[in-house]
Amino acid sequence: MILRRKGPKEDFYDLFTQAGNNLLEGTKLLAQTVSAPEPDRAEHRNALHDVEHRNDEITHTVARMLDQTFVTPMDRDDISLLASTLDDCLDLIDEVADIIVLYKIAEIPSRVTQQVEILQQCAELTAEAMPKLKTLKNLKSFTVEINRLENEGDKAYRKMLAELFETESDPIAVIKLKDIIESLEAAIDRFETLANTVETVYLKES
Amino acid sequence: MILRRKGPKEDFYDLFTQAGNNLLEGTKLLAQTVSAPEPDRAEHRNALHDVEHRNDEITHTVARMLDQTFVTPMDRDDISLLASTLDDCLDLIDEVADIIVLYKIAEIPSRVTQQVEILQQCAELTAEAMPKLKTLKNLKSFTVEINRLENEGDKAYRKMLAELFETESDPIAVIKLKDIIESLEAAIDRFETLANTVETVYLKES
Amino acid sequence: MILRRKGPKEDFYDLFTQAGNNLLEGTKLLAQTVSAPEPDRAEHRNALHDVEHRNDEITHTVARMLDQTFVTPMDRDDISLLASTLDDCLDLIDEVADIIVLYKIAEIPSRVTQQVEILQQCAELTAEAMPKLKTLKNLKSFTVEINRLENEGDKAYRKMLAELFETESDPIAVIKLKDIIESLEAAIDRFETLANTVETVYLKES
Repeated sequence: MILRRKGPKEDFYDLFTQAGNNLLEGTKLLAQTVSAPEPDRAEHRNALHDVEHRNDEITHTVARMLDQTFVTPMDRDDISLLASTLDDCLDLIDEVADIIVLYKIAEIPSRVTQQVEILQQCAELTAEAMPKLKTLKNLKSFTVEINRLENEGDKAYRKMLAELFETESDPIAVIKLKDIIESLEAAIDRFETLANTVETVYLKES
Repeated sequence: MILRRKGPKEDFYDLFTQAGNNLLEGTKLLAQTVSAPEPDRAEHRNALHDVEHRNDEITHTVARMLDQTFVTPMDRDDISLLASTLDDCLDLIDEVADIIVLYKIAEIPSRVTQQVEILQQCAELTAEAMPKLKTLKNLKSFTVEINRLENEGDKAYRKMLAELFETESDPIAVIKLKDIIESLEAAIDRFETLANTVETVYLKES
Repeated sequence: MILRRKGPKEDFYDLFTQAGNNLLEGTKLLAQTVSAPEPDRAEHRNALHDVEHRNDEITHTVARMLDQTFVTPMDRDDISLLASTLDDCLDLIDEVADIIVLYKIAEIPSRVTQQVEILQQCAELTAEAMPKLKTLKNLKSFTVEINRLENEGDKAYRKMLAELFETESDPIAVIKLKDIIESLEAAIDRFETLANTVETVYLKES
């Protein structure tokens, strides 16, 4: 107990671990939103909203703790950037779910599912990586793996965009689907930002 | 006189207060642009441009002063972030007016007016809050209020986006209106960034 | 030789100079992509991709060097911001080429060429400015010139957007061309961010 109360070290890492788990839960709920029949999507999206709100609390806690802590376990700016980037990732995932519900698309094309799967893999890697920040052990592969997934997602995104214009003649459908695949791409991209932030910490602290 | 020359403290706060007032004037001019008949919109937009240019000067002055000042009244990065975020808010408001003029939309839907009113309330709160940075008194409510408005704006935005696709069958009109409500949403969002920056200052300095 | 090995000073500046040259080469390849007949565009885009990947290496090298260097020739944050902004500029130029190839537009309107020419001028100024970072001599005009070009680009962008909606009745074509001119505008805008970063360095160090 006394040990655990020794400085906020544990606490920062715990919060990052929680944020990583929220990302994992969030992407699962996004996958459910996408695969659900149109009328049931809102329900899964609402569950995702709850996770997103829970994560906002964590981000605020990190900010508050940061202002009340003199000696931080890692660079102040990196802690702040790590928390806000984790938060951004979940916000963007939440936005995708929102658009999908708002646009009431009867059936969502399969390639969207590809992008969602990539997002889930990114979240799984993140949930595994966050607890490793304390020791910085086996973290290097995280950045490599996320960058690999981001490239994969990028290819899927470009293919889908080209295919969209080749196959879809209804402009309204094009506008809607373009928004969805772009918002998915934006979410995947943010994981690359996260990976770069983690790499910065890794290079600085190790 | 001697007192006033004591460090740039006053000056930084004065500049933030001026930026807050520019935001207020800018949102008023945006409201006039939106409510004006199509042929008269450009005139109000031009007036908004002038305010935006005046504010650029302020942002540059803050940057120059920051580089010439050794002891700053608050964290250097926060001063810089505060100035640039105030600048971003006005730039985004200016962008909305530009799009509205460029797109020559005969009549602008009422819900857009809702978003504009929210922007005006955000600007009013900001104009009131900036002079309080010096004493940090009664600033806490600013962040709370802006966040409340941002949530309101978010709801209005989502409602409108859904409604747009349900009611508007002309794809060109969809593209134009989607751009307008998205740019309004982006402007409202930036006020949340501003509120978070103010909160950071509040937590650090108070 | 001994002199050149004195600290990493030279190295940081060399890397910025290389990034500036990559930007110049990248914009030339973008111009070739735009002017090429549709079937040949991918080839020029691929060459641009290679330049972009080469530049990623530079950005990573700067980050690594920064973490391994105790005394940096200029403010750490400015070095990092300069490297990432140079990287962003090339990424955005690369994105434009990608969209142009993906959208398979038979013929690209002339005003797009105007924006591309502005981008090339921005890149030429940047390639000239980067080697001047070491002495900070004749750098002031860089920011002024880039801001002038950015305003020019902004006017071209607005004119084109208005013209697009006045002349193009096919919504799909509107979506595609709007994306292209917006991505070009985004790339030009990023050069302004670069210019502001350079100005910060100039004001701080000179």
